[in-house]
Amino acid sequence: MRLSRYFLPVLKENPSEAQIVSHRLMLRAGMIKQSAAGIYSWLPLGFKVLRKIETIVHEEQQRAGHIPMLMPTLQSADLWKESGRFDAYGPEMLRIKDRQDRDMLYGPTNEEMITDIFRSHVGSYKDLPMTLYHIQWKFRDEVRPRFGVMRGREFLMKDGYTFDLTKEDALHAYNRHLVTYLRSYERMGLQAIPMRADSGPIGGDDTHEFLVLAETGESEVFYDSQITELKFGDREIDYDSVDQCQAVMEEFTSRYARTDETHDAALFAEVPAERQRSARGIEVGQIFYFGTKYSEPMGATVQGPDGKPVPVHMGSHGIGVSRLLGAIIEASHDDKGIIWPEGVTPFHVGIVNLKQGDDQADAACDALYASLQALGLDPLYDDTKERAGGKFATMDLIGLPWRITVGPRGLKNGVVELTSRRTGESEEMTPEAAVEKIAEIYRGIA
Amino acid sequence: MRLSRYFLPVLKENPSEAQIVSHRLMLRAGMIKQSAAGIYSWLPLGFKVLRKIETIVHEEQQRAGHIPMLMPTLQSADLWKESGRFDAYGPEMLRIKDRQDRDMLYGPTNEEMITDIFRSHVGSYKDLPMTLYHIQWKFRDEVRPRFGVMRGREFLMKDGYTFDLTKEDALHAYNRHLVTYLRSYERMGLQAIPMRADSGPIGGDDTHEFLVLAETGESEVFYDSQITELKFGDREIDYDSVDQCQAVMEEFTSRYARTDETHDAALFAEVPAERQRSARGIEVGQIFYFGTKYSEPMGATVQGPDGKPVPVHMGSHGIGVSRLLGAIIEASHDDKGIIWPEGVTPFHVGIVNLKQGDDQADAACDALYASLQALGLDPLYDDTKERAGGKFATMDLIGLPWRITVGPRGLKNGVVELTSRRTGESEEMTPEAAVEKIAEIYRGIA
Repeated sequence: MRLSRYFLPVLKENPSEAQIVSHRLMLRAGMIKQSAAGIYSWLPLGFKVLRKIETIVHEEQQRAGHIPMLMPTLQSADLWKESGRFDAYGPEMLRIKDRQDRDMLYGPTNEEMITDIFRSHVGSYKDLPMTLYHIQWKFRDEVRPRFGVMRGREFLMKDGYTFDLTKEDALHAYNRHLVTYLRSYERMGLQAIPMRADSGPIGGDDTHEFLVLAETGESEVFYDSQITELKFGDREIDYDSVDQCQAVMEEFTSRYARTDETHDAALFAEVPAERQRSARGIEVGQIFYFGTKYSEPMGATVQGPDGKPVPVHMGSHGIGVSRLLGAIIEASHDDKGIIWPEGVTPFHVGIVNLKQGDDQADAACDALYASLQALGLDPLYDDTKERAGGKFATMDLIGLPWRITVGPRGLKNGVVELTSRRTGESEEMTPEAAVEKIAEIYRGIA
Repeated sequence: MRLSRYFLPVLKENPSEAQIVSHRLMLRAGMIKQSAAGIYSWLPLGFKVLRKIETIVHEEQQRAGHIPMLMPTLQSADLWKESGRFDAYGPEMLRIKDRQDRDMLYGPTNEEMITDIFRSHVGSYKDLPMTLYHIQWKFRDEVRPRFGVMRGREFLMKDGYTFDLTKEDALHAYNRHLVTYLRSYERMGLQAIPMRADSGPIGGDDTHEFLVLAETGESEVFYDSQITELKFGDREIDYDSVDQCQAVMEEFTSRYARTDETHDAALFAEVPAERQRSARGIEVGQIFYFGTKYSEPMGATVQGPDGKPVPVHMGSHGIGVSRLLGAIIEASHDDKGIIWPEGVTPFHVGIVNLKQGDDQADAACDALYASLQALGLDPLYDDTKERAGGKFATMDLIGLPWRITVGPRGLKNGVVELTSRRTGESEEMTPEAAVEKIAEIYRGIA
């Protein structure tokens, strides 16, 4: 994309309404615009990152055999009356009357609807196991929306639902989800630690939250420092293998890691003192096993091997897709702006032309731009008349992890400058070498 | 995808609530499930086609330099009060009160919101031309929702908004959109004819609707039969060229083609009698130029070349993404089921194993499946124990354009059978030749 043809309304001043750094930087980088309290438009740069995160989530879910679908945003209240949650949910549920005066609501989650789909179409244990998921906008009418997309009212969530014949099978689905979540977060450049959690209004026995460590996190967390050394990495895993998924679960949850809601001071004291840590964390996902909590009242049964009806064991598993943008920025920024991890960066590399209008510089930039695109890469070329300082400030603010700087002086020597946003280090090299290096960095990512 | 691990709840019986063939077939093929009047869940097969259509729309918009973003589903009523449409819109607008008793609405369209974004961030004529678009769920509270996704209440729409300094520039944007729409529909296997239209509640001077001919269409249409011979094809176009876009516009709109709303019997009589046609059509898109209708009351001005503020000339351009699934099926089906055009088919090819459990047949199917996937193709392998007749009926119903049938008898002679869903013609060939032929068919599409 050429910046002169893009819509990137960066702000020079810090917006007064933003209390935390991700909210401030998303506004300043022209990623979002508030349209009502807790409701945002995703401007082009923000939308691009949102789509990248969504794509990673889709890919990792489907790699595990989970099936994508899409449920609507508005729901009839009938199903929620059946489960008993219509009255129980409280004022965070946005209740709506349509023109026929029917009770509707903007879905805050989809347990009832998916259970209804399941019971309408699935009749036999032979159809299990099954995991259906979707990525859809949700609404929770927070009394005090704040922190930008971190606590918005309209937000994008991935929610997946598992259906199994037995508790053992359902716990395998739970473990399998834990693995997919670890992979997803790592691809986004995040370390998200699974912590034992409270089940809240969804209900359930087993549940873990995934927390990203960041000073601005809403939760206080306590953990054994060994946990931050764990990496899922690029290990191969067979998602059908109960043992393999179980082993990952144990590896990542056997050390102490809890939020203030479940913190147990006596247990924590057993962690060697030099490994005890307390910090703040941002919740970016949660997995639940809740057994037959919905299948029993809603009659979601299958015919078991003996011909008798069995209520299915269920779980639900969520990732806060829109919230992740805020979490990534909280975890990865400096005083100049955002620093995108390569896995989610809106553009792979920025090209800064130090002397727009200079024939040689323009030609070199055009050639770089074309070479990068030919390799399937997505560069942002600042081809405006802005002075160099302004161009650098914008690139730093929007956080592209790599920048190629092109100017007449370097070109005389046949070189351009490649700069890492994270380290600030620059290296001179030929344009061809810069293209090759960028291609190498994104091999297996882009 | 192996069918044994998929969720494809096909129905054997015709659902009584469906009056038209696309609704019936989408229910029978397990693509959608109604969750409330005019509100549907997209089951896995339906979601897959929906995403394909969405992807085509994104690609063709971005090819023309239009910039993707995303506005929220819920809007504050304030902007609509500013434009005067909050009271004018009527009961199709779903009005909502949030917990703070603020007036909100579920967006039926986004002219006000995009105009607000524009006026907040764009100040100079130098930033023009600009086209921003999004693909987002909309809600129109139809008094009598029917025909499945063809006239639903919650529906997915692409709506794009153009901002230009002058009327001439805005008309180029209008023509450019016409070209992108022609390309998009052709990639979906549809012929959609641009017809002069009424502007309705959006308002505007110039507007064309795109109509797909189908017996069940909601509009009566009148046209010169020459128009159905036009194809955009794979011609190259420079979207920045006013002349090239203008020429396409003239080519595709100079012959008589109107809906009953704008039909002019006297003009139609000038078409040679043997070329006069009347038929039914389904609206799948509309383009509008509406000048300063929103920019003037909402103060969306830019500084012109002379330093004076100028209200921008705007247009809005919509494609009914979810409705297109219905339109494609209305235009392409037979008494056995759907016939997907290659550009939007949920799976590229079906593999039917005539003797599941037979070592040789299973091995041949596994090899075919792996070869197709290795080429980036997406097969649906019916690996269930269902008898052959049932497998064929399902494949015909869900409408994959190609089917490979594998059985012990053919394998003895080293062949499988490749069948076209559209013509019903079958050909025997080696498995390798079948894979090569499928790859050839999808080259440049998949």
